[in-house]
Formats: sequence, C-alpha cells, structure tokens
Amino acid sequence: MESLTVIDIVGTAAFSVAGTFAAMKKKLDIFGIFIIAFITALGGGTLRDILIGEVPVKWLMDLSSGIIVLLSTIAALLFKTVIKNYHNVLLFFDSIGLGFFTVVGIQTGLSLGFHPVSCIALGTITACFGGVIRDISLSNIPLIFAQEIYATSCIFGGIIFFLLMKLDMTKMPIEIICLASVVLLRLLSVRFNWHLPKIWKTTKSPI
Amino acid sequence: MESLTVIDIVGTAAFSVAGTFAAMKKKLDIFGIFIIAFITALGGGTLRDILIGEVPVKWLMDLSSGIIVLLSTIAALLFKTVIKNYHNVLLFFDSIGLGFFTVVGIQTGLSLGFHPVSCIALGTITACFGGVIRDISLSNIPLIFAQEIYATSCIFGGIIFFLLMKLDMTKMPIEIICLASVVLLRLLSVRFNWHLPKIWKTTKSPI
Amino acid sequence: MESLTVIDIVGTAAFSVAGTFAAMKKKLDIFGIFIIAFITALGGGTLRDILIGEVPVKWLMDLSSGIIVLLSTIAALLFKTVIKNYHNVLLFFDSIGLGFFTVVGIQTGLSLGFHPVSCIALGTITACFGGVIRDISLSNIPLIFAQEIYATSCIFGGIIFFLLMKLDMTKMPIEIICLASVVLLRLLSVRFNWHLPKIWKTTKSPI
Repeated sequence: MESLTVIDIVGTAAFSVAGTFAAMKKKLDIFGIFIIAFITALGGGTLRDILIGEVPVKWLMDLSSGIIVLLSTIAALLFKTVIKNYHNVLLFFDSIGLGFFTVVGIQTGLSLGFHPVSCIALGTITACFGGVIRDISLSNIPLIFAQEIYATSCIFGGIIFFLLMKLDMTKMPIEIICLASVVLLRLLSVRFNWHLPKIWKTTKSPI
Repeated sequence: MESLTVIDIVGTAAFSVAGTFAAMKKKLDIFGIFIIAFITALGGGTLRDILIGEVPVKWLMDLSSGIIVLLSTIAALLFKTVIKNYHNVLLFFDSIGLGFFTVVGIQTGLSLGFHPVSCIALGTITACFGGVIRDISLSNIPLIFAQEIYATSCIFGGIIFFLLMKLDMTKMPIEIICLASVVLLRLLSVRFNWHLPKIWKTTKSPI
Repeated sequence: MESLTVIDIVGTAAFSVAGTFAAMKKKLDIFGIFIIAFITALGGGTLRDILIGEVPVKWLMDLSSGIIVLLSTIAALLFKTVIKNYHNVLLFFDSIGLGFFTVVGIQTGLSLGFHPVSCIALGTITACFGGVIRDISLSNIPLIFAQEIYATSCIFGGIIFFLLMKLDMTKMPIEIICLASVVLLRLLSVRFNWHLPKIWKTTKSPI
C-alpha cells in the first residue's frame, strides 16, 4: 500500500462504511452494497482524476484501494448488528471521510500548481462527489444540493487551509487543522441544524 | 478572459441564468443554486473535453468561466423579483445557450479534424449535456429525452453549419446563421408545440 | 469497419436492440430512443475508455459504431410489431451484449497489462455501465444495484476466463467459453429466479 497515504486510507475506509450503511437503507444485495461503498469511497477521487487527466485511474492499477473498500464493507456489515443508531454512525463516518478527502483534493491541486480556488474546488469534488454519484445511482436527490452545510464544510476547511499557508505553517499541522475544521463544521451544523440561506424564503416562491 | 471567446462568454452566462431558475424551482439553498448553475453552464463542455481528452479541464486552470457563472447567478437572483414570467425567461436563456454552445462544440470538432457527423455530435453534447447532468442531479428525467425539439435544434443547426461551409462562406456568418437556426427552431417548436414523431402512437403500446 | 472486431459489432448491435426496447417502455420520441440505444451500447465502453485515458473516444473518430447503433435501432423498431414478448426479447439481447462486452473489457485490460482483478472490473464496467447510465438517465434505479445476478454474471465469466488462461488454452476458445458463461448464468438466474443473498433478511431491517 505504499502508493496510498494514511489520509487516503482513513478517508477511503470511512466513506466505505458510510456507503455501506447508505446502501443497506436501500436494501441492496451484497454485490450492490459493495459497489455503492466503492462508488462512495472512490467516486469523488475518480471524477477528480478524470477532470485533471490523471488516467488510468489509480484503483485500476493498484488494488489496494479496492481491498480497503472490501475490508471496510465487511467490517461494517459484521458490526451492524451491534450498532444501535445507524443515522449517527453514518453521519460520523461520512464527516470523517469528508475531512480527509478535502485535504487529499487540495494536495492534488497544489501539486499541479492550481490557483487556491481551483484547489478548494478539487478538494470539494474529491470529498463530495462520491456521495453525489452514490445518491444519483440510488435515485435520491444528492444531499449536497438540498441539505445542510455539506460542501460548505469542505470549502470552509479549504479556506482555512490557504489562510494557514499564508502564515507559513508547516504542512502537517495545516492538514490536521483543515481536516478538523471540515469535520467539526459538518457535525456542528447537523447538531444545531444550521442551514445556508434559502433564497426563496425571503420573497414569494417563484413557482 | 483572453482564453474565452465572446461565444463562450454569452453561452456560459445564458446557461447560468437558465440553471439558476431551474435550481430555484427545486428550492435549493444558495450554494446548491450556484452548483446547478455551474453544472448547467459548464457540464456539457466538461463532458466534451473529457471525451476528447482535453484535460485538465479549462475551468480548473482558468477561473474566468467560474467568475462568469458566479456573476450571472447573482444577476439572475437579483432580478428575479422583477421578473413576472419565469417559464419564458428560462426558455429564452436556455435557447440562447443552446445556440452558442452548439457553435462552440462544432468548432472544437473541426479543430480536431473530426467528421462533420462527429462535429455535430460534439456540438449537441456541448449544448445539451449540461442540462442533462443538471436534470439527472435534480432527479428529473432529462428534458432532452422526453420532450420537444431540443437536441434536434442543435443537430438542425449543425447541418446548416456544414451546408453553408460547402458554399465557401466565411466563418463568422456561418456561425451566426447556425446559432440563429438553433435558437429559432427551439423557440418556434415550443411556441407551436412541435414534436418529433413518437413511435408507440402509431401502433399499440408495447407494454 | 476494420477497427471493430466481430465481438464489438455483435455486442453493440445486441445492446442497441435492448436499449431501443427499454426506451420504448418509457415512451420517448425517436431521437430519444436513438440516444438511449446509443448510451446503452456505447456508454460502458466510453466510461472504460475515459477511466483508462483512451481518448478521444473511438466513436468520435470512427462513425462505424454509431452506424451499427442506428441500423440496429431501426431494425428493432421495424420488427417490434411482430414481436409478442417484449420482456424476453429485451432479456435475450441484453444477455448477449453482456457476454460480448465482458470479453471486450477483459481484452482491453489485458492489453494494458492490468491485474486479472482489474481486467474483470473493466469487463464488468464495459458490460454493465451502459445500462447503468441508461437507467440513471431514465430515472430508474439501475438494475445492477437492486436485482438479479447481473454484474455477477460478468464477474463469474471473468473468473472463468482467467482460470482457462492458466490452463494455457488458446485465445479464441477462452473468449467463447467466457462469453457463453456470462450469457448462460444471466439467463439461468432469471429463469430460476436466483438472487445474491440480501444482508438485511438475515437480521432485522436496520431502518
């Protein structure tokens, strides 16, 4: 697994668990559950790699990502009988994945010399679009489009990242603070039911 | 913005406005509205660039497209209170975008030396698939698959384009006539409720 | 059509017919039917080529795939009045396409020197994701996620393929046996209503 960083591994595992729980809600068979876990965990990074031309995509040339998804899915299935509150488990693992993959995406953008705005966009795509593709595959409106502070957490974490870079901090603490900001904002926004303003509430509905 | 042509800019702005109105119909929050405007405006061109291997995609390396989407979305949101007929506004801007992006896609195909049929396919993809990805994201059946003369306008405009090229006309008037044909056919088809023939009406429904 | 193998041609034609019948169920117009046939037949291969960076995609540079889709769609539309059992016809052509495209995808992976697991993944993507993109476009939950032995047939055929390669058999019989295994398992699973185990039946539903 030398080609994967710790950040990659934790993010992949966390999103696989989140994907497994999302797939169980839809009562898929075991193959469907694995595919949805795979899409959740690797879909965002795959879209990112396609957009920047980093192909063939990594998971075709190196089986370690797929193995992590497989093991995480099996673990999630084994532990599901002892877990009481599915909603909170899904939320927790999803937030962890969100934080880790935001950092991965920003790093990718930096390594290509992109503008900070593009780096934050790549971080957000890496973190959010696995879930978007999963939701579309399951015929749900993607969470990201209709709900709480989700992609906004990634953007917020990304802005923190580049503010800290201006302060000449070293790489490791910047990544940890960025990651923690994403997870924290996501969890707090759910806990306290924060929302972005909705345009149509301020005036009459257009429709 | 030197890397964008006038055609790119007008098409992007028109589709951003159309996307903003489509997103407001679904009552998304402001971030969701921006993302849907972005997908509507840049999704077709992004799919085109992925299909031809023109990556990293332009909007990651040059922020001007994103800025146009942002400004157009803000403008659409500001003016929405003075607009009476949302449906017609959406139709108008969508038709404009359709025309401009058909031309952009055909030009891309020509620059790669593709067959006219492939150029028209690229024009249609550039013009229509932002809307397709938007509709899929919002859990709608894409307009293009179930409705009026939509993609057909792009194909019609593309055929006009290559017929005029045979007549050795210069580039600019060909582009303007192609663009106008697309917009005109789209608007007329809605006004007079034109449809393509539906197979199953001529015989008993298969199901 | 020198750039296409017999396997490509039969697979494309079979999936085009299957796509045409799926689109007629949704009462699309003739353009919509053609696009859905095209997506069904070429969507899986297109996704595979994007994932491995084989771009511009073949069907933009060589019109023969598009022509096969067009002719197959026309043939399917002409013969639909004499066909009694739409469901079985759709199943039959879909299974044929599944078998042929599994082989095509595995061959692609082998030519790139991929690990057998990645080759089987590519075969499964090539065979299944045209249908996935079609189902998502038509706002259906993809067959592959919620139903019978579908992708599993491709994986089973792929395993057979690599087991036979270990036996030093020549290429042609391996391909035919692989292809037949996929078609057979798919048809038998529908006939005898075989399913993969569903996790949530063994315990209480998590939701």
